[in-house]
Amino acid sequence: MNPTIELLKSHRSIRKFTDRPVPRELLEELIRAGQAAATSSHVQAYSVIHVTNPAHREAIAELAGGQGYIARCADFLVFCADMKRPTEAAERTGARVVRGMTEQLLVASVDTALMAQNVAIAAESEGLGICYIGGIRNDPQQVSDLLGLPDHVFPVFGMCLGYPAQEPDVKPRLPVAAILKEDTYSDDREQVAAYDETMHAYYQGRKGGNKQSDWSRNLTPLFDTKLRPHMREFLVKRGFEMK
Amino acid sequence: MNPTIELLKSHRSIRKFTDRPVPRELLEELIRAGQAAATSSHVQAYSVIHVTNPAHREAIAELAGGQGYIARCADFLVFCADMKRPTEAAERTGARVVRGMTEQLLVASVDTALMAQNVAIAAESEGLGICYIGGIRNDPQQVSDLLGLPDHVFPVFGMCLGYPAQEPDVKPRLPVAAILKEDTYSDDREQVAAYDETMHAYYQGRKGGNKQSDWSRNLTPLFDTKLRPHMREFLVKRGFEMK
Repeated sequence: MNPTIELLKSHRSIRKFTDRPVPRELLEELIRAGQAAATSSHVQAYSVIHVTNPAHREAIAELAGGQGYIARCADFLVFCADMKRPTEAAERTGARVVRGMTEQLLVASVDTALMAQNVAIAAESEGLGICYIGGIRNDPQQVSDLLGLPDHVFPVFGMCLGYPAQEPDVKPRLPVAAILKEDTYSDDREQVAAYDETMHAYYQGRKGGNKQSDWSRNLTPLFDTKLRPHMREFLVKRGFEMK
Repeated sequence: MNPTIELLKSHRSIRKFTDRPVPRELLEELIRAGQAAATSSHVQAYSVIHVTNPAHREAIAELAGGQGYIARCADFLVFCADMKRPTEAAERTGARVVRGMTEQLLVASVDTALMAQNVAIAAESEGLGICYIGGIRNDPQQVSDLLGLPDHVFPVFGMCLGYPAQEPDVKPRLPVAAILKEDTYSDDREQVAAYDETMHAYYQGRKGGNKQSDWSRNLTPLFDTKLRPHMREFLVKRGFEMK
């Protein structure tokens, strides 16, 4: 196993950071590494807001469900799907632009994620820790207002960056045999059952708080309510109509 | 700059491959590296179909717009957003599951992209070349039929894998100043104009075919028609109702 694969496999979310700042040159280098990721038709449908305003960091920490490390980490980034830049660039060349297609929402969301994952890997390769923050979608309208996001741009997730002040365990993943399927989609209940045992043992033994659960039981709160039911209306209002 | 960041910044899509096969153990290691990526609430909402059936590879190459390397590369993977596994796992524990939320489409698409980007980086770290294939969304229903994808699973993109038989240029990206914004979304027309000059020079000078274009002009075909207008109906039919 080479050192890059070793690095990829050692990922765990970091939520406690030292006071050591991230040099500006390094931050820009991480973004450049992010931009080097593949992008659909070279559209580069993303923008990253570097949130330095302390009041905004506090507000986002609050609306994300009280995740104080959003306010305390060295740098906090909001990764946005951005269809404004490319559609307006095409319009300036005289193109008659169609907006609001479902496909465009997918392209921009995937572009943003590929880019962000490169930023995450680059950061970890420099000894930084990161934590994705999906909780900004608890109130994407307020986040958009704080960051002055225009139409055709929406906040997909945030990312905390900083030097780690904790060493959490790496969480076990589903067996490869569940994920990687040969030619056709195949049943994976057996692998899930085995994984539930793995996760049960993990939750009992892990550093930083054990609990009685497993993977399947842990998913209930994610699915037994309408998760973030405002997302559709929010996206439509911002120009992602999912036509 | 460390070797991992160097690797990230050297990415270019590979569309010509040698006959050298990718060992099965390496393929599984790439998937494990992929699974180590962050995942929303640990849901791991993805499956990867390893397409080995030559007739299916040919069919997908055709429907993706005549991309022959899909048939000829060492390995072809289809990355699927998978809400079937986690929702059914939750149901087996007794949860009453809500499906079809827009948020769930986002979670699964982002999870799939983060995972795939780790696979891409791991592959490139082992000297492999990769090419993402968004063209499978030209006919996602036919791809789903070929691969026997059930409801609540949809093909997001493909990926060609193999040892490179070409050495294409790295394509210039937008200036960092366009992408990375301080605290609020800011206008980037100036950076786009400078980038159009960069891309104009790139398209004139690049290996493997030059053309008269720039970034903005190149985007027209992406936006002047309803791109993949079937996506909404397809997703709704497969259980991603975007409620």
